[in-house]
Amino acid sequence: MTDTPPEAATPAWDKESVLALAERYRRWGQWGPGDELGALNFIDAKAVIRAASLVRHGRVISLAMPLDAAGPQKGAYGRNNPLHYMVQDGGDIALGAQEHLAGLRYTDDGVSMPLQCATHWDAFSHIFYEGRMYNGYGLAEVTSAGAARCGVERMSASLTGRGVLLDIARFRGVAALAPGESVSDVELASCAQAQGVTVGRGDIVLVRTGHLAAARLEGWGDYAGGDAPGLALSSAHFLCGREVAAVAGDTWGLEVRPNEIPDLFQPLHLVLLVNAGIPLGEMFDLELLAEDCAGDGVYEFFLSASPLPFTGAVGGPMNPIAVK
Amino acid sequence: MTDTPPEAATPAWDKESVLALAERYRRWGQWGPGDELGALNFIDAKAVIRAASLVRHGRVISLAMPLDAAGPQKGAYGRNNPLHYMVQDGGDIALGAQEHLAGLRYTDDGVSMPLQCATHWDAFSHIFYEGRMYNGYGLAEVTSAGAARCGVERMSASLTGRGVLLDIARFRGVAALAPGESVSDVELASCAQAQGVTVGRGDIVLVRTGHLAAARLEGWGDYAGGDAPGLALSSAHFLCGREVAAVAGDTWGLEVRPNEIPDLFQPLHLVLLVNAGIPLGEMFDLELLAEDCAGDGVYEFFLSASPLPFTGAVGGPMNPIAVK
Amino acid sequence: MTDTPPEAATPAWDKESVLALAERYRRWGQWGPGDELGALNFIDAKAVIRAASLVRHGRVISLAMPLDAAGPQKGAYGRNNPLHYMVQDGGDIALGAQEHLAGLRYTDDGVSMPLQCATHWDAFSHIFYEGRMYNGYGLAEVTSAGAARCGVERMSASLTGRGVLLDIARFRGVAALAPGESVSDVELASCAQAQGVTVGRGDIVLVRTGHLAAARLEGWGDYAGGDAPGLALSSAHFLCGREVAAVAGDTWGLEVRPNEIPDLFQPLHLVLLVNAGIPLGEMFDLELLAEDCAGDGVYEFFLSASPLPFTGAVGGPMNPIAVK
Amino acid sequence: MTDTPPEAATPAWDKESVLALAERYRRWGQWGPGDELGALNFIDAKAVIRAASLVRHGRVISLAMPLDAAGPQKGAYGRNNPLHYMVQDGGDIALGAQEHLAGLRYTDDGVSMPLQCATHWDAFSHIFYEGRMYNGYGLAEVTSAGAARCGVERMSASLTGRGVLLDIARFRGVAALAPGESVSDVELASCAQAQGVTVGRGDIVLVRTGHLAAARLEGWGDYAGGDAPGLALSSAHFLCGREVAAVAGDTWGLEVRPNEIPDLFQPLHLVLLVNAGIPLGEMFDLELLAEDCAGDGVYEFFLSASPLPFTGAVGGPMNPIAVK
Repeated sequence: MTDTPPEAATPAWDKESVLALAERYRRWGQWGPGDELGALNFIDAKAVIRAASLVRHGRVISLAMPLDAAGPQKGAYGRNNPLHYMVQDGGDIALGAQEHLAGLRYTDDGVSMPLQCATHWDAFSHIFYEGRMYNGYGLAEVTSAGAARCGVERMSASLTGRGVLLDIARFRGVAALAPGESVSDVELASCAQAQGVTVGRGDIVLVRTGHLAAARLEGWGDYAGGDAPGLALSSAHFLCGREVAAVAGDTWGLEVRPNEIPDLFQPLHLVLLVNAGIPLGEMFDLELLAEDCAGDGVYEFFLSASPLPFTGAVGGPMNPIAVK
Repeated sequence: MTDTPPEAATPAWDKESVLALAERYRRWGQWGPGDELGALNFIDAKAVIRAASLVRHGRVISLAMPLDAAGPQKGAYGRNNPLHYMVQDGGDIALGAQEHLAGLRYTDDGVSMPLQCATHWDAFSHIFYEGRMYNGYGLAEVTSAGAARCGVERMSASLTGRGVLLDIARFRGVAALAPGESVSDVELASCAQAQGVTVGRGDIVLVRTGHLAAARLEGWGDYAGGDAPGLALSSAHFLCGREVAAVAGDTWGLEVRPNEIPDLFQPLHLVLLVNAGIPLGEMFDLELLAEDCAGDGVYEFFLSASPLPFTGAVGGPMNPIAVK
Repeated sequence: MTDTPPEAATPAWDKESVLALAERYRRWGQWGPGDELGALNFIDAKAVIRAASLVRHGRVISLAMPLDAAGPQKGAYGRNNPLHYMVQDGGDIALGAQEHLAGLRYTDDGVSMPLQCATHWDAFSHIFYEGRMYNGYGLAEVTSAGAARCGVERMSASLTGRGVLLDIARFRGVAALAPGESVSDVELASCAQAQGVTVGRGDIVLVRTGHLAAARLEGWGDYAGGDAPGLALSSAHFLCGREVAAVAGDTWGLEVRPNEIPDLFQPLHLVLLVNAGIPLGEMFDLELLAEDCAGDGVYEFFLSASPLPFTGAVGGPMNPIAVK
Repeated sequence: MTDTPPEAATPAWDKESVLALAERYRRWGQWGPGDELGALNFIDAKAVIRAASLVRHGRVISLAMPLDAAGPQKGAYGRNNPLHYMVQDGGDIALGAQEHLAGLRYTDDGVSMPLQCATHWDAFSHIFYEGRMYNGYGLAEVTSAGAARCGVERMSASLTGRGVLLDIARFRGVAALAPGESVSDVELASCAQAQGVTVGRGDIVLVRTGHLAAARLEGWGDYAGGDAPGLALSSAHFLCGREVAAVAGDTWGLEVRPNEIPDLFQPLHLVLLVNAGIPLGEMFDLELLAEDCAGDGVYEFFLSASPLPFTGAVGGPMNPIAVK
C-alpha cells in the first residue's frame, strides 16, 4: 500500500458534479445484491491481524463522549441528551426499601436517549437519496419498526481493525479549525505524509478538527447541529480511492458546515454513506488519542469501535477503544 | 503465571463462612482509598500487549445479545426490553415530510432501556452490603442522580485485555448446565487444564454454561431473573487467587441460582464485586466464541469489552469483541 | 328526544355490507372540510347545561384505570405498561443530596408510556381505511412528527357533557359477558329502556360488559389485545342513529373480538371512528359507576372526560370523571 | 359563607415567623392519622352540587397547556418537555408495513415526560420539611418505587368542584405581573370583592398573574424555574382561613420568586402543601377562562381538574376543565 499523491483540488461543486462524484464511487452490488456491510468488507482477517500488530505499548484509550445530561444536544429534531434514571439507589437502601432481600442490597437504572446523541456510527439506513440507501434498498426497509436492512446491528461484528488518526488541527498548528473550514483530499494526504502514516484498504480513518474540544471548553452552543469544520467533498477521492472501511470525526456531522453546495443537504453523506458504503462516525472524542499520537509520533493503532447491536437502529453508540 | 492446583472443595456454606470468604478476598484500600477500578488495576500495559499478541487469525466475534423487544426481560423489577422508537423513518420520507431538506433524506431513532437488560457489566456501585460497596464507599454515593463513585463510566477505558473462555458445558459434554447446577473452583481449574489454557493476573474470564443458548431456543421463560446454573461460591478461590480482572458469563446473574445459602442474596456478588473489586459480566452470548474455540482448540483471545460511559450508571451495556 | 325502537337485527355481515354501513353513516364534510371534531359537534352548550343539571347528589366517580406497572399491557405491538421513574425521592433527601436547598426538600418523577395503554380515547387519526381517516384526511397527516390533523389535542376542550351508562352485564344478569359475545343495537336499546334512560344527540355512551373487572380479578391474561366481548356492528344503528357524541367501554377495543367478519380488522372502528366521526373510548373502569347507578337507578350523569392535550397524539389518556 | 375582611399585611418574614405560620395552619391529624386528602376533604357532596349549579351557559374551557416539545422546560433538574414518539404512523401504512391487517390500518404512539413538566398538581408527597410531608408521613414513604403515601392517585376522584378565578393581572390593570411581584392576602380579598365573587370552604382557587401568557409570547426563557410573580406568604391567611380545597396558578411554582425569605426554599409550599394539606396547581393556562370571566363578569364555575391516577406519582398532569 503506497501513499499515492492526492488528486488535484476539485473546483466549485454544483449538484451535477456532486451526483457525478457519488456515481463515480458507487459500490452498489459490488458485494452482491444482499450486502449490508459496504466498505466494511475491506476489513479482512489480514487487516485485523495487522491491526493487532500495532499494539506496542499497551495503552488503551476510549474515544467516547460521556453519555449524560451535560452533552451537546439541545432538543432540536427530537435529539435530547441521555436521560438517566435510577430504578433502585442508595436512598432506597437507606430507607429500608429492600428489607425483603437477604443481606445484599442493589441499585439499578435505565436510560432514554436518541441513538445518535453522542459518539456513534451512522448506519447505511440513516440516509436516503431519491428513495434509495446504500446498495439500492428502498424506503420500505425503514419503518416505525426500524430498519429491516442495514440496521446498525449488521455492523456489530465489524468496525474493529486498523485505525489511523489524521490530526488536521495539529497539522495546521491550530487548536481547532473554525466552523466552515473544510479538509480536502489534498490536505488529508499531506497530513498523513507529515505524520508518517499510510492510509489504505480497510482502515478506519479518524479526522480530528479540534472542534469538539473547543466546543466543550466554550459551552456547547450549536455544536450538535450548527456550523462546523469538516471534510470537503473532495475528501471522497482520498477515502474512496484508498478503500478505507470507515471514517469518523469529532464534529456532529463529519462534513463541513455550511455545506459546499446549498442544494444538497450533507452532500458528502450522499457520496460516502449512500453510494460508497462507508460508515460515518460522528462526535468521536479524539483529544487523548491525539495527544498520545503526538507524543510518540505514531498515528496508527488497533481500533475496536464495533457498535452495540440495537436491532433495526439507523445508527448507534459504542465505546471506540484505541489500543497502541 | 502457573496453573496452580485448585483448592479443596468448600463444605456447605453458612453466612459466617461466606462473610469470612468475603473478608479473605477483600481488596479495599489495596489501590488507595480513592480507587474505583479494583481488580481492573491488574490489567497493565504488559497484559494488553500480551492480549494483542493472541490475535492470530483475524477473526472478530461479538459477544453481545441483540438489543430489542425480543429480549429476555419480562418487566420484573422495572426491567423491560429495550424500547426502540423512530424519530424519522422511510415512511416520513415517502409522505414528503422532509421536503424542507435539499435532496438528502434521513432517518433517526432513539431507545429507552434498563442499562442491565442485556449484555452488560455490573459496576461496583451496583451492590452494597451493610451500607458499603467496593472500597468502602457508602450509600450516599448512589442517589437518584446516579453513582458519584464507581459508576460504570470509570471502567470505560478498561476491560480491554486478555480474554479466556472456560466452556464448562463443553467440558461436561452437555448442551447446557441445568438451573441450580454450580461451577466450583475445582471445575474451573480442571476445565482450564483440559482446554490447555492458563488463567492468571489481569485476565477477563468468560464462563459458558450454555444456559443462554438453551433459553433462547426454548423461549426465554424466567431466564432474566429465575433459577440458573452458575458459579459456586468456591469459584472465588479460583478467581481471586489468580487475580483475574473480571469475570462474565452467559446467565442473568453469573452465580448459581438458587443461591448456595438462603440468608444472603447473591452471595458471590458480595465476595467478588463488593469485596474483591471484580466487575461481573452478565448475559454474554458466548456461543459463537465457544464454537470457534472448540474449532481451533485455542481458548484465549484479545477481548475489548469496555462499557459505554454512561455517567453515574451502576452498570451498563457494551459490545464485547473477541479477536482471535 | 324519544327512545325510538331499535332497528331489526342485521343478518351476517360481509365486507360489502360493512362498507355499505360505513357509507351510510359517513359524516365527512358534514361540519365542513376542515372539521376535526366529528360527532363531538353534537355536544352544544345546551347539552352541557343539561348535563350539569344531572348533578343531584354530589358524588364524584373516576373511571380511569390506575396508570402503573401492574396494568394489562404485555409489550405486544410496542405497548408496555407505564414506566414510572423517580428523579428525586425520599432516599435522596435522607442521604443529604439536597443540602443545597434551604430548608425544603422535594421529590420529582417522570413517566414513559404508550398513550393508549390504559383508559383513553382514540383520536380520529388513529384509524385509516384506504388511506383516509375521518373527514377524508390522508396518510401524510400522520408522520413520525405526530398527527397534523385530528390529533387528540383537538378534542381537549370537548368530551365533557352528558354521560349515559348502559350496563349490559347487569341487564343480562351476569358478572361479565364472555369474550366473543356481542352487544347489538337491539340490546343497547332494550338495556336503555330497562334502565329507564334515554340516549340521544350529544350523549357520551358508556357500555359496560364487566370484562375489565373479570380480567382484573383473574389476572390480565390477554385483556389488552385478545378476544373480548363488545359492540356488534349493528350497534352503529343505535349510536349513529341517535347522534351520540362518543362511545366508550371497558374492554381494550370496544368492539367484539373475534370480529364479526374476518376480512376487515376492527370493522366497527371503520364505521364509527373513520366514517361517523365518533371518538371511541377504551379501557374505562365502569365498576364503581355501575354500582352507583344500580343503587339509585339513575344511569345518566355529568361526565368530564376531556383528554390531555398531547399535541399530535393519535389517542390519549385522561381521567374521566362522572358526577351524579 | 361571607367574604370576610382580609387580615392585616404581615411584616417582613423571617424563618421563625414562617415556621409559626406553618404551625398555625397545620392540619395534620385533622382528618385522622391515615388521611391523604387534606383540604380536599372540604369538597363535600354539597360543594359539588353547588359547583354544578354554576353551569349556566354551557361553555367548556380547558386550562391545560399543550403537552409537546415546544413547552417551557429546558432540561434543568431532569425536566424536559414531553417526548412524543410514533409506534405506527401514516408512513408505515404508505410503505405497506401493515399488510398483515385486513383492511383497516392504524397508528399508535407513546410519550416520555416528567410528570410536572406542564399543567399539573403537586401531590402532598412532593414536598418535605425536616423529613415530614403532609400529615407527618416520613421520607420512607417516597422511594424509587414511588410514593406509598399521598401519591397523586389518591386525589384522582377529587379536585372536582367549585372553581373561582382571581384575575390579579386584570385587577391591577396590567397584562402581567412582573417576576418578583407578589400577591398578598389583602389583594386576593380585594380582587375577589372587586370581581364580586366569594371564596370559601372547598373552593379551588385559580390565581392569574398573566405570566404564562407573557412568557409564551416572549419566548419561554426561564419560565420553568426562574423568577416569577406569585403568591405571597400572607396569602396563606386568605387561603387557609377560608378553607379552600386547592389553589393553582399560571406560573411554574405558584409562589413569588425570588422567595420572600432566602433561608427557606419555596416557603409557601411549606405552609400550604406540607402543613395545611392544600394541593398546589402549577402552569394552569388561565387566559381563555379569564377572557370569559371578564366578558360576563362571573368568576365562579364548575371545575373538573382531577389528576390522572399515576400510581405513586408525587404530582401529575390532568386537563382542568372549567364549565360555565
